Amino acid sequence: MTDTTLIGLDWGTSSLRAYRLGSEGVVLEKRELPLGIMRLLGQNRPASDERAALFERACRQACDGWLEADPSIPVIGCGMIGSAQGWREAPYLAIPVDIDSIGLSLTYVVGQNGIVLHIVPGLIEHSELPNVMRGEESQITGALRIAARGKKAANGRNSSLLCLPGTHSKWVLVREDRIMHFETFMTGELFSALCQHTILGQTMRPSEDASAFDRGVRVAQSSARRASLLSMIFSTRTLGLTGALEATQQSDYLSGLLIGHEIASIQQGTDNSYFLQEILLVGNSALCLRYKRALLHFGRVDVRIISDATERGLWTIAVQGRLLERA
Amino acid sequence: MTDTTLIGLDWGTSSLRAYRLGSEGVVLEKRELPLGIMRLLGQNRPASDERAALFERACRQACDGWLEADPSIPVIGCGMIGSAQGWREAPYLAIPVDIDSIGLSLTYVVGQNGIVLHIVPGLIEHSELPNVMRGEESQITGALRIAARGKKAANGRNSSLLCLPGTHSKWVLVREDRIMHFETFMTGELFSALCQHTILGQTMRPSEDASAFDRGVRVAQSSARRASLLSMIFSTRTLGLTGALEATQQSDYLSGLLIGHEIASIQQGTDNSYFLQEILLVGNSALCLRYKRALLHFGRVDVRIISDATERGLWTIAVQGRLLERA
Repeated sequence: MTDTTLIGLDWGTSSLRAYRLGSEGVVLEKRELPLGIMRLLGQNRPASDERAALFERACRQACDGWLEADPSIPVIGCGMIGSAQGWREAPYLAIPVDIDSIGLSLTYVVGQNGIVLHIVPGLIEHSELPNVMRGEESQITGALRIAARGKKAANGRNSSLLCLPGTHSKWVLVREDRIMHFETFMTGELFSALCQHTILGQTMRPSEDASAFDRGVRVAQSSARRASLLSMIFSTRTLGLTGALEATQQSDYLSGLLIGHEIASIQQGTDNSYFLQEILLVGNSALCLRYKRALLHFGRVDVRIISDATERGLWTIAVQGRLLERA
Repeated sequence: MTDTTLIGLDWGTSSLRAYRLGSEGVVLEKRELPLGIMRLLGQNRPASDERAALFERACRQACDGWLEADPSIPVIGCGMIGSAQGWREAPYLAIPVDIDSIGLSLTYVVGQNGIVLHIVPGLIEHSELPNVMRGEESQITGALRIAARGKKAANGRNSSLLCLPGTHSKWVLVREDRIMHFETFMTGELFSALCQHTILGQTMRPSEDASAFDRGVRVAQSSARRASLLSMIFSTRTLGLTGALEATQQSDYLSGLLIGHEIASIQQGTDNSYFLQEILLVGNSALCLRYKRALLHFGRVDVRIISDATERGLWTIAVQGRLLERA
């Protein structure tokens, strides 16, 4: 087995992803376990020592076999494991935050059996309506590092608009490697709730229909200023009733409406320069392709998709935090 | 038993309301049965003759004892019973529609045992994103009739903006007794889905908090032009995380956000004169009071709440359709 240098955990609400990293952060092995913190905690709220035992056991399971040769290999984790419901709360860093400095604010927790987990802080934006993230700061760090690779050294510092689509999509404005602003859109979660728990889902038949997706994006793009989303989404049903949208098209049409609305909102935001940055899409590749397709309607042909950002980010943050400098 | 002149049925998706009306449409008796068409049909889609038998049985149950003395008493119904999934499809009337003419387009169905149900047509607006209603046309008809009572005869024809809040809120522009335009907002259904099936509901504790509702309305009012609803609703969670919103306040805050967003969208609509009409709120009185409170933030102090509109509308439409002119 090639030497392990670092173990990285991306520990969210529903799943726990573990990465065994070698020198220079190369990924030697990865695992995905259904041990996200909400799955571990379940409906009942266990007492804090019981919670700690649950988290430690899951952590050992994720690292199984990776620490036997050298128990001093550092372990770093990001995501909901650092929330108030997690193993140890890692206080939010308030933006603006230099992405080179996140690793200087790690928290750690020591398990009963001696395992040490270093926890990456989440970020908060104290605006009128505050915004928070946990886990995405590591993806952002990794994505910017990956994006910088192709650039000239002279132009090393990054200014970009990042989009991390998902349950709660994040749009993040980075200027000169500083996270300046971010917003959260409940697009993924709302899409699921609408399909599964409202009248819109009742007439949907599963299928993939790119033209229906495009149509939804265009409707959102042209209507965003004058129509409310609350009203626009109902067209999924009425276009079906009038025969203008097949049952097999309704899901992709709604997806296009929501994603188009999200992008239109970013484009029309208060800061006009916002949307003119280089755009990096970070995350699940099928979802990134969907956003890339939608962004074409907004004239953005220069969009890059970055994958494997979390593991690169955890490595980068561990280096910043000097976790790898061992005796 | 006072003489029955008409039986009116408000037959929707989940419930069936029945009204026994006397002379001049006075309500003599009312019933509410859990026999909405979706409850009757269930998950399995029965064949059409089986469906007809289900609907006829429910219809007889709703009218139980009311037709014995005189089986020729007319029965009129509105709502989803006239949809493609209902007993007999009553084709939509396309707006603009004169409210005095709806009763000229009734459909009817005759049951196996001879009962005749006259069905009120729904309305459709053939715009780029079409809009439909079934049942609300009867509420609108009744509400305008009730609202006209207090006015001078010279000023008898109505120009109003009606709001029918609910699962799918409708806003309806009426000029000179003609329905000119309407919009649907999925406010009520989205609120339920967000509370019951997303992360926002997880931290909510049930309570009533009028100040939290007001806060939500104000946020929606001030943010509507620049923030997406997809992003704004997430503040229900983040304000909770930062301690700025108690668990007991989150539900009313979210309700205020959604209702405020709906009203802001009407106010900022393409037609500026839209929001300057007299506003009539029609429907469930607790919900109407909530909308009335929200409208105060938009400077509207002159809002009337109209109740019992459906039964008045069914009576009015039956008169238009000459159902009461019997041999």
